[in-house]
Amino acid sequence: MRRYKVAVAGATGAVGQEMLKILEERKFPVKDLRLLASKRSVGKRFSFSGEPVPIEELTPSSFRGIEIALFSAGADRSRQFVPDAVNAGAIVIDNSSAFRMDPRVPLVVPEINPEDIKTHTGIIANPNCTTIVMLMGLYPFRTHGLRRIIVSSYQAVSGAGAWAIEELRRQVITWSLNEIQNQVLGTTGQVQLLPEKFPYPIAFNIIPHIDQFQDNGYTKEEIKCVNETRKILHNETLQVSATTVRVPVFRSHSVSVHLETEKKLTVAKARTLIRNAEGVQLYDDPSTLKYPMPYLVTGKDDCLVGRIRRDETVPNGICLWIVGDQLRKGAALNAVQIAEIVIGKR
Amino acid sequence: MRRYKVAVAGATGAVGQEMLKILEERKFPVKDLRLLASKRSVGKRFSFSGEPVPIEELTPSSFRGIEIALFSAGADRSRQFVPDAVNAGAIVIDNSSAFRMDPRVPLVVPEINPEDIKTHTGIIANPNCTTIVMLMGLYPFRTHGLRRIIVSSYQAVSGAGAWAIEELRRQVITWSLNEIQNQVLGTTGQVQLLPEKFPYPIAFNIIPHIDQFQDNGYTKEEIKCVNETRKILHNETLQVSATTVRVPVFRSHSVSVHLETEKKLTVAKARTLIRNAEGVQLYDDPSTLKYPMPYLVTGKDDCLVGRIRRDETVPNGICLWIVGDQLRKGAALNAVQIAEIVIGKR
Repeated sequence: MRRYKVAVAGATGAVGQEMLKILEERKFPVKDLRLLASKRSVGKRFSFSGEPVPIEELTPSSFRGIEIALFSAGADRSRQFVPDAVNAGAIVIDNSSAFRMDPRVPLVVPEINPEDIKTHTGIIANPNCTTIVMLMGLYPFRTHGLRRIIVSSYQAVSGAGAWAIEELRRQVITWSLNEIQNQVLGTTGQVQLLPEKFPYPIAFNIIPHIDQFQDNGYTKEEIKCVNETRKILHNETLQVSATTVRVPVFRSHSVSVHLETEKKLTVAKARTLIRNAEGVQLYDDPSTLKYPMPYLVTGKDDCLVGRIRRDETVPNGICLWIVGDQLRKGAALNAVQIAEIVIGKR
Repeated sequence: MRRYKVAVAGATGAVGQEMLKILEERKFPVKDLRLLASKRSVGKRFSFSGEPVPIEELTPSSFRGIEIALFSAGADRSRQFVPDAVNAGAIVIDNSSAFRMDPRVPLVVPEINPEDIKTHTGIIANPNCTTIVMLMGLYPFRTHGLRRIIVSSYQAVSGAGAWAIEELRRQVITWSLNEIQNQVLGTTGQVQLLPEKFPYPIAFNIIPHIDQFQDNGYTKEEIKCVNETRKILHNETLQVSATTVRVPVFRSHSVSVHLETEKKLTVAKARTLIRNAEGVQLYDDPSTLKYPMPYLVTGKDDCLVGRIRRDETVPNGICLWIVGDQLRKGAALNAVQIAEIVIGKR
């Protein structure tokens, strides 16, 4: 089998690390692997297929000879370096928001619109993690015409990056040490959890704000759910109303969706459609308390769908609850799946 | 001023304790205070207005001479003992779900339907905590006709009781000690967080299940949001679609609401209506990252409303985010406010 020269830009981040793991697990045919990150990570090395691979600095000349470049280094760095990678002849799969809405760039979830990959001119964009997780639970209903999606998200901190995992961890340990001290010493002091990069404490708190606010009161994250969903589904009239929220969970995003379809969709039919769809699993049995949760899905490829029930407040309404590992299907796995299609492996 | 003989049934619980605090803070005219709980709490004593008050066992004869009885001991105990209290001549304010949907029992949020109190025949019901928090943010829009409410909740563990606070605390400390051990010893062991009374781990997890499942796939908590909302607002055609979810937060519930009104409601008008309403505060300025969060509202009386924005997917749609301390306004404070009206103090 032909093997490829692959670069990962942003290799030290939460998604970058997951990309390495998934390339290895899925035996992506890698000939050469180049791990790129900012200058301050140079000197680190990671093991790939038993070999140590050093981190190199991400520069315009990093992509000589590279055939596939996976980017997950933030939108600014994508805007800066993706053109260099394309000019060097690489096909770029970009996990940032930089090119997602560019009409020349396909935005792809392989289970949903793999055919769009063919139209690429060097760049293929990986959708926002929440959008992917949500759509994995909704795309099986396309047969019934998606009309309106109302979504509230419960997003894990790792969606914000490795720093956010560390920030939640630090706050939780600080809080625990104070609890232990109080109990051991018979004191009652409360400790203040100081935010570092999050605007407010995230431990034991809920922050209804992800990415920047726009003039209309929505956050960019909420706007992404709308625009990216329409682009992926090729459905410009689809109505999407989103509230995106950060919760004190380390990993895996949950979404509560109240969906309206064009044609009547019964609960039984919805279950069958999920059961037969690729990349999602029906996980729905109230009688045995079976419903999707972040801790169940972390480290797993498939998204889980449950709590399916009729929304009686509209003619064709259905409610559901979707959970997916946003570092895997919501980011790294989706990118590697795209790469597999690019090289004809799927 | 006339002073009253007051009983608190369920005095050792999370809500019961908050009731004591609020009776004290608001200088409710208490002559005698009787604290009632199950047998195993007998022997405990709590301080009220500087005096120690012992816990007595809740029995059918606990209410002799009592004029106002605040119940928060669970629906089963309310069903068992509320009739005894009423027979003894007390006016009961019951925080459980036992009598909420009884047509002879008013279900009251004092800011919303205080006039219903007058119709009582011995029992006044306190609504479900999530319903109260949600309605505090929505009742100011009644002028515009509430048509459809789509709500996803983010409910703190203390809504489940004092045991749930302890369960989250224990899991978080267990996790932290393992993290510290790993770091100090250079190990990588993971600890399993074992659920005790919650069906699954709650630390770092999200559980889309509160109260029992019904045959239609909804939980009782979700059904309560529908039925209680209609009863409080005297609006039997109001459409409510709810997904209720437990999150790893100690205290204060958040709700994401996508609302449709009969008449067009602009964001500016919505802000004005909230600003002028009793019991809620407008807390909404994206430019300064001002939005409601549980940690802000804990211990506060007013519910906070923010993230107000147009829902463009329907003609008269608006989205908002409401947070309230569910032990205070969502339970104990609301009950004491009802008691204040009963005795003519408000």
